[in-house]
Amino acid sequence: MEKVVVIGLGLIGGSMAIDLKKNGNYHIIGIDRNINHTSKALELGIIDEIGADSILTEADVVIVAVPADAIPPVTKSVLDQINENTLVFDVGSVKGQVCNQVKEHPNRKNYVAAHPIAGTEFSGPEAAFSGLFTNKINIICEKKLSDKKILEKALQIFDKLEMRTTFMKADEHDKHIAYVSHLSHISSFMLGKTVLEIEPNEHNIFNMAGSGFRSTVRLAKSSPAMWTPIFLQNKENVLKSLTEYIKNLETFKNKIEEGSNEEVFNIMENTNRIKNILDGIVK
Amino acid sequence: MEKVVVIGLGLIGGSMAIDLKKNGNYHIIGIDRNINHTSKALELGIIDEIGADSILTEADVVIVAVPADAIPPVTKSVLDQINENTLVFDVGSVKGQVCNQVKEHPNRKNYVAAHPIAGTEFSGPEAAFSGLFTNKINIICEKKLSDKKILEKALQIFDKLEMRTTFMKADEHDKHIAYVSHLSHISSFMLGKTVLEIEPNEHNIFNMAGSGFRSTVRLAKSSPAMWTPIFLQNKENVLKSLTEYIKNLETFKNKIEEGSNEEVFNIMENTNRIKNILDGIVK
Repeated sequence: MEKVVVIGLGLIGGSMAIDLKKNGNYHIIGIDRNINHTSKALELGIIDEIGADSILTEADVVIVAVPADAIPPVTKSVLDQINENTLVFDVGSVKGQVCNQVKEHPNRKNYVAAHPIAGTEFSGPEAAFSGLFTNKINIICEKKLSDKKILEKALQIFDKLEMRTTFMKADEHDKHIAYVSHLSHISSFMLGKTVLEIEPNEHNIFNMAGSGFRSTVRLAKSSPAMWTPIFLQNKENVLKSLTEYIKNLETFKNKIEEGSNEEVFNIMENTNRIKNILDGIVK
Repeated sequence: MEKVVVIGLGLIGGSMAIDLKKNGNYHIIGIDRNINHTSKALELGIIDEIGADSILTEADVVIVAVPADAIPPVTKSVLDQINENTLVFDVGSVKGQVCNQVKEHPNRKNYVAAHPIAGTEFSGPEAAFSGLFTNKINIICEKKLSDKKILEKALQIFDKLEMRTTFMKADEHDKHIAYVSHLSHISSFMLGKTVLEIEPNEHNIFNMAGSGFRSTVRLAKSSPAMWTPIFLQNKENVLKSLTEYIKNLETFKNKIEEGSNEEVFNIMENTNRIKNILDGIVK
């Protein structure tokens, strides 16, 4: 039975622990600097035992599932302590910084830079659930810098989680993910903020919120502790995506102001094709 | 059996027809200037028969469910043709303009200005379904201008659709709905546009789109034919909400640019309370 150490027992680390434990071939040891998280994870049966850092020397697999700003230092520290056969992977939403910071590490070959694209707006071990990763995409960056056997071991784990893995360069990943994920979170948070500011009577929000608003504002329930370091770590790409987004909003606003029926219509019609893309019907 | 004429057999008109027909006490006559819609609605059993305008003189109830720009002229024309006991209501997302335009109509008392807050991103008779209105909010504006018996008849219909009705002034409705509904649609359309522009390789969007992006961009699949006249008819309020939204995005962008950890965190944390509001836990 392989020893899997999960550092960070939130939604992602916790859900991974649940499904690896279910699989039966893994003994799950949990580490979290928040002792409420470790005891909750043990109580909920997410992990088999609570571990200390000293366990890292014996680990077969170490999963780094801490907030974005902690990923580079924690990953480096883990690489300092493991044995030569240990697989270490992180699950962070930004890949450039951690890849750069471990590039010259003597154990770089033991590390796999992963981003399983899965989540909900909830956080903490109570939010973890079985099946979070099923049929979701996992992106692995800089795969050539990982040892072949180590990479193989990682792919087996993602297979067991029923994920589909694709490969990308770290800087490409960070650029695309800024648009497809990080920008959505900001647009949603700012929508929530704008509506809260204008509605002193919160019953109006509750009464008038259709399913459309609920869906668009859902991500505004997300954890600030998780998202603040992501936005700051992927700052350059996030700022670029925000600039483009604001530019598009300004243009659309001007077209409405001018009363340009046809242009307002055309902008929306051209955007409708997002439907086919999300359904996987790409030309 | 009461004769209900539904003008406009799209998602809203069609879904209303389905559930009133189910109820058993109504004979549903459909009118739509798009003959594909009328024949499809008949084929799908959404309506009992296709009607001509001449039927209006015999109607017990007329539901105006056409696009926003057509609502004021169609409602006026319907009011010209009905008998003294006919209830006429529209289901549009903007209420100020239609209320103003029928204010002096001799049959104003036969009209109820309604906005059932329900919908999906799909349109046309094929998108109509039973249960769309169940447990949703319906807003009625300027109720004092409707005859009491006529209003009563309308409330019975919304009861049969299992909606909860609240009352508002038309200008208040239009202001609030701009923020809580119209702005969501624009933020979603512009998110979709921004991502489409930056991703020449559409496979990236498909591969990297998590549930968060899917949820935030869902409304960008909505019908431009439906939404263009809504934005233009509610122009003043929509522009105001967009200005506030863009201002919030600019501020947030600046905070990220400055690397203000704490402020980025606080803005998001203050917005998290949208969760309790949407769950109905309002302080």
